[in-house]
Amino acid sequence: MANIQDKISTYPDFIEPFHVDFNNRVFPGVLCNDMLNAAGKHSGQRGWGIPDLMKEQHTWVLSRFSVELNRIPQLGETIDISTWVAGAIRLFTTRFFSLTLPDGTPLGYGRSIWAMINTQTRKPADLLTFRGGELLNWIVSEEEKPCPISDMRTLRIRNATPARQVQTYYSDVDINGHINSMKYVEHIVNLLNHEQHTRGIRRLDIAYKSESYQGDVLSLCTEWEQDDEVLLVDVKKPDGETAVQARLTLFPRD
Amino acid sequence: MANIQDKISTYPDFIEPFHVDFNNRVFPGVLCNDMLNAAGKHSGQRGWGIPDLMKEQHTWVLSRFSVELNRIPQLGETIDISTWVAGAIRLFTTRFFSLTLPDGTPLGYGRSIWAMINTQTRKPADLLTFRGGELLNWIVSEEEKPCPISDMRTLRIRNATPARQVQTYYSDVDINGHINSMKYVEHIVNLLNHEQHTRGIRRLDIAYKSESYQGDVLSLCTEWEQDDEVLLVDVKKPDGETAVQARLTLFPRD
Repeated sequence: MANIQDKISTYPDFIEPFHVDFNNRVFPGVLCNDMLNAAGKHSGQRGWGIPDLMKEQHTWVLSRFSVELNRIPQLGETIDISTWVAGAIRLFTTRFFSLTLPDGTPLGYGRSIWAMINTQTRKPADLLTFRGGELLNWIVSEEEKPCPISDMRTLRIRNATPARQVQTYYSDVDINGHINSMKYVEHIVNLLNHEQHTRGIRRLDIAYKSESYQGDVLSLCTEWEQDDEVLLVDVKKPDGETAVQARLTLFPRD
Repeated sequence: MANIQDKISTYPDFIEPFHVDFNNRVFPGVLCNDMLNAAGKHSGQRGWGIPDLMKEQHTWVLSRFSVELNRIPQLGETIDISTWVAGAIRLFTTRFFSLTLPDGTPLGYGRSIWAMINTQTRKPADLLTFRGGELLNWIVSEEEKPCPISDMRTLRIRNATPARQVQTYYSDVDINGHINSMKYVEHIVNLLNHEQHTRGIRRLDIAYKSESYQGDVLSLCTEWEQDDEVLLVDVKKPDGETAVQARLTLFPRD
């Protein structure tokens, strides 16, 4: 059984010039990408990365991802991204994140839910028995390491109306030809207007429902859950099936 | 006068999972971004970065950028990006790049041309007299450090035909509200088809002509300079003025 220092890893993340928006704040898609990279490094360093699992015909699939910020990191800052496994049930594991300044000041937190699938059968693996349940050894409890970010509330999208159609190209897809999870964030966040981006996104929740592919024209439909503050987004594929749903919670007006 | 070790800096660059394409090779826009970041660090560490110049109401403007590769870096590789100042005339300075594997194997080279402008007047500065000509101290000669990549040949685009219109959004623009130089690369590279991306881009040349802004619909016009191997791209703004021109040279068919 690993002790807690062995279970949590921290990766410094420098906010680069071309990775900030017109407010000099990191693009949401870039920050989420950096968090997923931290997750990849953390799991890889423990033999549980996607390349490791691939050798056993398995891979991780991101199901839900949330990030909530006190303040958006800015150009030139180096932040520390810490991540750890926070739980596992049969078909899903939870991974938490904290974002801090080098002096320890918290900037925000993240939580994510992952399934593992068999790359041949596409069926989910039982995480409690895969590799003899070794994953459980990596779990850090909430008592050991708190992560004060609430669970993603269910996304109930009832009356979303079409807002934009997005073409997908080469730069949108990953090794599997699927639209990559962070490119959805970019397209979704592009829906906001100048004033909304000036306020900034306080919290992003995103749920991955089904795969879409290069060339798919995505229909982005939107609905305000709370006027001018919480926007729901339904990303539909050409056949009408939902690929991704998201909730963007903005910082309040001054 | 600095000695040569002080004039050249090398930055390791890890090729991340969401930064590779369907071939597991780094996206061209990501690689160019990483090279520009290396340039930013190199100049910043010598007091010549954009934040330093801003304090004196000046900034760097990228005019031309070329990169030529023997092989495209792949997922999981860490490459070394080295960069140095290679020359200066009155209104322009040249910056070179080399890309190598950690064992020293060359992967490719880059060259770029920059102007410095006064942020108030938008007029170019005289680099030979700015700060008493101190920039000249940083120059590394071709004898000291060779950079075997040819100069960008003039882009003569005569018969380009419209290929695609691209909307520009929040994620396309930088702190100044201009479409950022690396997003042009992304849009341009998206013009290639699956077979062309499978071969890959051996060399990219890009010339920045005039600024475009968020909301501008860009017209991408193309013309084969050499059939199926060298593509010219003219990126026009809504008023018909050229924002950017590029040449994509593909790896030959097997």
